[in-house]
Amino acid sequence: MNDFEIGLQQCFEEMVEWRRYLHQHPELSFQEYRTAEFVANHLRSWGIEVRTQVGGNGVVGLLRGDGQGPTVALRADMDALPIQDEKNCEYSSLVQGVMHACGHDAHTSTLLGVAKVASQHRGKLQGNLVFLFQHAEETTPGGANAMIQDGALEGVDAVFGVHLWTPFPIGHVYAKSGPMMAAPDEFTIRVQGKGGHGGLPHQAVDSIHAAAQLVVNLQSIVSRQVDPVEPCVVSIGSFHAGTGFNVIAETSTLSGTVRTFNSELQKDVMKRMERIIDSTCSMFQASYTFDYKMGYPPVVNDTNEAERFFKVGTALFGEEAVHESPLIMAGEDFSYYLYHRPGCYMFVGAGNEEAGIIHPHHHPKFDIDERSMLNSARLLLGMALDYMA
Amino acid sequence: MNDFEIGLQQCFEEMVEWRRYLHQHPELSFQEYRTAEFVANHLRSWGIEVRTQVGGNGVVGLLRGDGQGPTVALRADMDALPIQDEKNCEYSSLVQGVMHACGHDAHTSTLLGVAKVASQHRGKLQGNLVFLFQHAEETTPGGANAMIQDGALEGVDAVFGVHLWTPFPIGHVYAKSGPMMAAPDEFTIRVQGKGGHGGLPHQAVDSIHAAAQLVVNLQSIVSRQVDPVEPCVVSIGSFHAGTGFNVIAETSTLSGTVRTFNSELQKDVMKRMERIIDSTCSMFQASYTFDYKMGYPPVVNDTNEAERFFKVGTALFGEEAVHESPLIMAGEDFSYYLYHRPGCYMFVGAGNEEAGIIHPHHHPKFDIDERSMLNSARLLLGMALDYMA
Amino acid sequence: MNDFEIGLQQCFEEMVEWRRYLHQHPELSFQEYRTAEFVANHLRSWGIEVRTQVGGNGVVGLLRGDGQGPTVALRADMDALPIQDEKNCEYSSLVQGVMHACGHDAHTSTLLGVAKVASQHRGKLQGNLVFLFQHAEETTPGGANAMIQDGALEGVDAVFGVHLWTPFPIGHVYAKSGPMMAAPDEFTIRVQGKGGHGGLPHQAVDSIHAAAQLVVNLQSIVSRQVDPVEPCVVSIGSFHAGTGFNVIAETSTLSGTVRTFNSELQKDVMKRMERIIDSTCSMFQASYTFDYKMGYPPVVNDTNEAERFFKVGTALFGEEAVHESPLIMAGEDFSYYLYHRPGCYMFVGAGNEEAGIIHPHHHPKFDIDERSMLNSARLLLGMALDYMA
Amino acid sequence: MNDFEIGLQQCFEEMVEWRRYLHQHPELSFQEYRTAEFVANHLRSWGIEVRTQVGGNGVVGLLRGDGQGPTVALRADMDALPIQDEKNCEYSSLVQGVMHACGHDAHTSTLLGVAKVASQHRGKLQGNLVFLFQHAEETTPGGANAMIQDGALEGVDAVFGVHLWTPFPIGHVYAKSGPMMAAPDEFTIRVQGKGGHGGLPHQAVDSIHAAAQLVVNLQSIVSRQVDPVEPCVVSIGSFHAGTGFNVIAETSTLSGTVRTFNSELQKDVMKRMERIIDSTCSMFQASYTFDYKMGYPPVVNDTNEAERFFKVGTALFGEEAVHESPLIMAGEDFSYYLYHRPGCYMFVGAGNEEAGIIHPHHHPKFDIDERSMLNSARLLLGMALDYMA
Repeated sequence: MNDFEIGLQQCFEEMVEWRRYLHQHPELSFQEYRTAEFVANHLRSWGIEVRTQVGGNGVVGLLRGDGQGPTVALRADMDALPIQDEKNCEYSSLVQGVMHACGHDAHTSTLLGVAKVASQHRGKLQGNLVFLFQHAEETTPGGANAMIQDGALEGVDAVFGVHLWTPFPIGHVYAKSGPMMAAPDEFTIRVQGKGGHGGLPHQAVDSIHAAAQLVVNLQSIVSRQVDPVEPCVVSIGSFHAGTGFNVIAETSTLSGTVRTFNSELQKDVMKRMERIIDSTCSMFQASYTFDYKMGYPPVVNDTNEAERFFKVGTALFGEEAVHESPLIMAGEDFSYYLYHRPGCYMFVGAGNEEAGIIHPHHHPKFDIDERSMLNSARLLLGMALDYMA
Repeated sequence: MNDFEIGLQQCFEEMVEWRRYLHQHPELSFQEYRTAEFVANHLRSWGIEVRTQVGGNGVVGLLRGDGQGPTVALRADMDALPIQDEKNCEYSSLVQGVMHACGHDAHTSTLLGVAKVASQHRGKLQGNLVFLFQHAEETTPGGANAMIQDGALEGVDAVFGVHLWTPFPIGHVYAKSGPMMAAPDEFTIRVQGKGGHGGLPHQAVDSIHAAAQLVVNLQSIVSRQVDPVEPCVVSIGSFHAGTGFNVIAETSTLSGTVRTFNSELQKDVMKRMERIIDSTCSMFQASYTFDYKMGYPPVVNDTNEAERFFKVGTALFGEEAVHESPLIMAGEDFSYYLYHRPGCYMFVGAGNEEAGIIHPHHHPKFDIDERSMLNSARLLLGMALDYMA
Repeated sequence: MNDFEIGLQQCFEEMVEWRRYLHQHPELSFQEYRTAEFVANHLRSWGIEVRTQVGGNGVVGLLRGDGQGPTVALRADMDALPIQDEKNCEYSSLVQGVMHACGHDAHTSTLLGVAKVASQHRGKLQGNLVFLFQHAEETTPGGANAMIQDGALEGVDAVFGVHLWTPFPIGHVYAKSGPMMAAPDEFTIRVQGKGGHGGLPHQAVDSIHAAAQLVVNLQSIVSRQVDPVEPCVVSIGSFHAGTGFNVIAETSTLSGTVRTFNSELQKDVMKRMERIIDSTCSMFQASYTFDYKMGYPPVVNDTNEAERFFKVGTALFGEEAVHESPLIMAGEDFSYYLYHRPGCYMFVGAGNEEAGIIHPHHHPKFDIDERSMLNSARLLLGMALDYMA
Repeated sequence: MNDFEIGLQQCFEEMVEWRRYLHQHPELSFQEYRTAEFVANHLRSWGIEVRTQVGGNGVVGLLRGDGQGPTVALRADMDALPIQDEKNCEYSSLVQGVMHACGHDAHTSTLLGVAKVASQHRGKLQGNLVFLFQHAEETTPGGANAMIQDGALEGVDAVFGVHLWTPFPIGHVYAKSGPMMAAPDEFTIRVQGKGGHGGLPHQAVDSIHAAAQLVVNLQSIVSRQVDPVEPCVVSIGSFHAGTGFNVIAETSTLSGTVRTFNSELQKDVMKRMERIIDSTCSMFQASYTFDYKMGYPPVVNDTNEAERFFKVGTALFGEEAVHESPLIMAGEDFSYYLYHRPGCYMFVGAGNEEAGIIHPHHHPKFDIDERSMLNSARLLLGMALDYMA
């Protein structure tokens, strides 16, 4: 075990403390003021160069190593969710209706641990480390792109990040080459008919009937129009129309999400949706508005850096613990970093069935097996060191 | 022109006064306290036997004629609607959000006029007249049935009623033998699926998809399953489901109305709906609740009394003014009286395009050509006298 | 009983003979050569002026009465159907695959009986009688229009016709004012997609999926777009597509029928169909052809002549035997005569449950209670005489 | 280059001769009598132990090497297709309506070449080679399973096979670990309604409407019910119903295919189909039969043997020529061998755009770049030798 590894082991208890503190003091996306301050103060205390308010509440730390090697960025996200914490424990959220239900508190604490340990051994670093503490991952347009626009990746050669993941068991790590997480788009459709008496449908244009047919017709995109080997989802999440049982509803409003793993398909689906909406409405003499908001791009890992993950992961955790990740239908704005730099996003198992740590992300009882932080720290630092070597 | 006719002509101005007073002081269904008092006081002042609080706020007047002939009931409804009056005139509603937007104020005033004139000439009546001032026609379960349960039709041989109708022009009258107005039923369907992540539809049961298919499937009742010569409508008036664009909605709630003209079909449609709901939900592994509330039965006029209408109407207004009514998809709880006694419900034209009286019933600018009240009074009294003769 | 009535009674046996002869020798639409000859010879033998090959195989007889009264046309149709007779009786069809399964043999014989009897008493006729023996009622474009184009209605003041009807019981007669029988239109839709491998739907345009959606979408015409009190049917009768289970079908062909009772609605439905076909195909990037063939117009009886039916029918058969006809979804090219002249088409009950005469028209075991011919003859002649009076 | 490689190069011309001979004399599935004889005679001539009529027309050759190593089976399929050859060349099919339009002639010739060369150098074989010349790959139930039942895999340790593939360019080879080719199932659905008059839908049960709804409803399996990352296809290939435009069709018959890559999903889809068929029919009071015929299982390559492919392929053809195969929606009964033994199925590029060799498999103008046979032979033998080493 090298000095870095030993350092992380020793720092683990502190990471847990930081994490629990942040868990009690969660801040919503774009409001991560105190968290950013917490991070910046710690980084500075370890002699790390700090830039704050990067693209918003983002904090960027730079640790120069002694060697002439490359610069590797490691990223953590800092924001919490508008969910009421239902856990019964001493570190439950102290903020009403706000909760770290996705593990970003642990991401932040993990990266702080990495920063501290790395700063203690900067003489052994063959290159430089950049620490990206990102705000606003949960809410579009997200913080990643803004931080990049604000120079966060300047001088950076590669970028790595980790998501703790409770559906995967503690002790295991996952990634894959190529597309790994979906592009999560959002759309709103407003079908405009003509109101009227419920007993006289022929004098009206029934927006509910048209919108219901639309929901049915939209199924054909996935079932008939998309290559069966391309994962794709078109879901309607809400349907609201009408006020009375005996009145034909003038307007129906639908919202939903599209999930794809490549941007050509993403654009194709949007076009096909528009075609189906237009035809369905024209069929019933209704009109419409269609508002399509592209979310984050898909997370696409670099092939070489994914191979590095398998190598480094195996060295750290053993062959049995390293897995090819399945495709994940959720989105992540880590994708923006990968658009600009080679890199790899990785999942670190944080679930523990025996210990009752079984709740999915965004659940009001979400928690993690905290040992996953140590694994994350080891993986992140291991990737960076291997890259520099 | 006989004495009754002359009397009605003379009373017309007073009817208009009463109507405008009532128009300014509308009361919602089941809250017609002051209207009932207004009616009862007038009836008593003319020496008519009055029973109040009949089945609720109903008022029943009995005028005994000198002859030994039959007893004929005439009915008016008294309630107003929860609509904000948008008319600009001196007799606009003085009650915020409540309005006589269906003409019941005029019905009541018309029947008061008939009662006054008849009481003045009771010696010429070969039978008795019963005046049914009914509460709560607009809101199920309505007042008609309650008044009947409370004895309103005791001793009555036949029953007649009139609806002023602005879609028909002033000076014209309409009725038909057999079914004339629809049974307006109400239903609520709750489709229970299983919520989930918008990107993972296979782990959820998408209630919006199931409910949309249901809307489509329900079309087949009218298009394929009902005799094409039987008018029938199944309309969905509201569809509410989901809160977020990226969450599969656990529950979808639909409400709507069924309109039929015969009770066998009414029951058949209800059964077919249940079958379609059950099959559609089972298809997608959803569950459901289906709440079907029968509204008023269809208004079915007696053949002989409808013939009397054509005879009396022709005598009063001339052949050109008397028409076979089309089927009207709206409902009326006058149907209950017709279930128990022979009778006829009639439409009296109250629209006047030249005078700008063109708004449909339940419209915030609804008004009538007030001369329709005189026509109504003549028709009602004419029918009663003819029946007694 | 007047001389005409006595004459018809006496002629009944002969009518039955004629009918059974024709029943054994049926001829398809547009091929009624021998039937026309049979008719013409008989008419000539009674001194009736005959014109043959009127608009095809039509035969027109003219019987001039002594009076100066109007000219009344009576019509019978002569063609049979491509159905194999399955009756077991001595007068079964002798022609393989051809059968009088709709009663036109009896219509022809009935009108022959009327002609013979009228010719015997022509001195008592106050006007003239025209006998229209029409070819090709069963197959569009039908014979009626061609005969009219060829002058069959010249000099005619009114026209009457009868259809024997087994769903109605012997002894009863039916008609109604206004629309009585539907316009039966025919359409063919060809949905053109793009063939392909069954496992690769995204490379094809699935015509079956588009056409299936189309069938579903077309339901909305009747369920949502047509006035609920207007009877209307849109039925798909055939759907043919594809040859193999694992190949996407390039083309789907649908055929069907539309039934309406007024020509405005008829045109409206055609337009709405085109809109739905166009939109559905465009939705899935398919193309189409839509061939709509208007059938006969609806049969619309003249109000006065329908009243005459009720009067004459009551006089002949008693009040209990005369009924307002329901709307009949089948079509009849008698409608063309009614388009040009006032008149009335009537149904004469020909069913007899006790005698086992229960099969519907166009059934391979179709037969009639032959006494219905006498009733028809009496009704037709009665209408003509009443009109002349 | 070792002796085997040199031998294959020298044998290439002979392979081409054999292939062209077989191309001129194609035999349909289960009728490969002369092809089997051709193969058996050649094998015997090289001193290879031959067993014929293995599970049908299958031929199994055994070549014992000198070493004590494992036994490796190599497989070729021998049957042709019911397609008319439309190529204009000297080796076109001489059999009317039968053609090697999938390349099995080349598969057979390739494996003959491997057998000949291996037999010449048997002293250098560290193990034994089994040559599986399989009949009836194109038609279920296929020959693979029958040959296995008849002992074809006895003593075999691993099995390899190749498909020449024109969509991939000459010089390139493809395979992947895990699922690679789909399970192609076949189904037939018969929807039984109740016939009737096209104008009277309410008296019938419209099988076309029910079946059309079924086609629409079945879309939801892929769009909503299957994990988006699992490729799955449900296609309806044929829809046949009805004979006349004005008659409601009593029966509608659909056929189609399901494509999946794992057998759990395969069974799940079948169950979901049954549920949807059952619910849809019950919704419209129709009945049904559902006949589901499982095709071949998916082709699932062994992970280790797939790795061997990448290693051997790279050694033979260079890194640039070796690719991870996409998922292929077509099926193959090579899957049965892989169910019983570790192994790998591989694609060898056989297309050549410049040379006009561009037609897909099963096309009437299908042909291959014959050099692909040499590549196949090298790959097959290379895999076997590597396995033995």
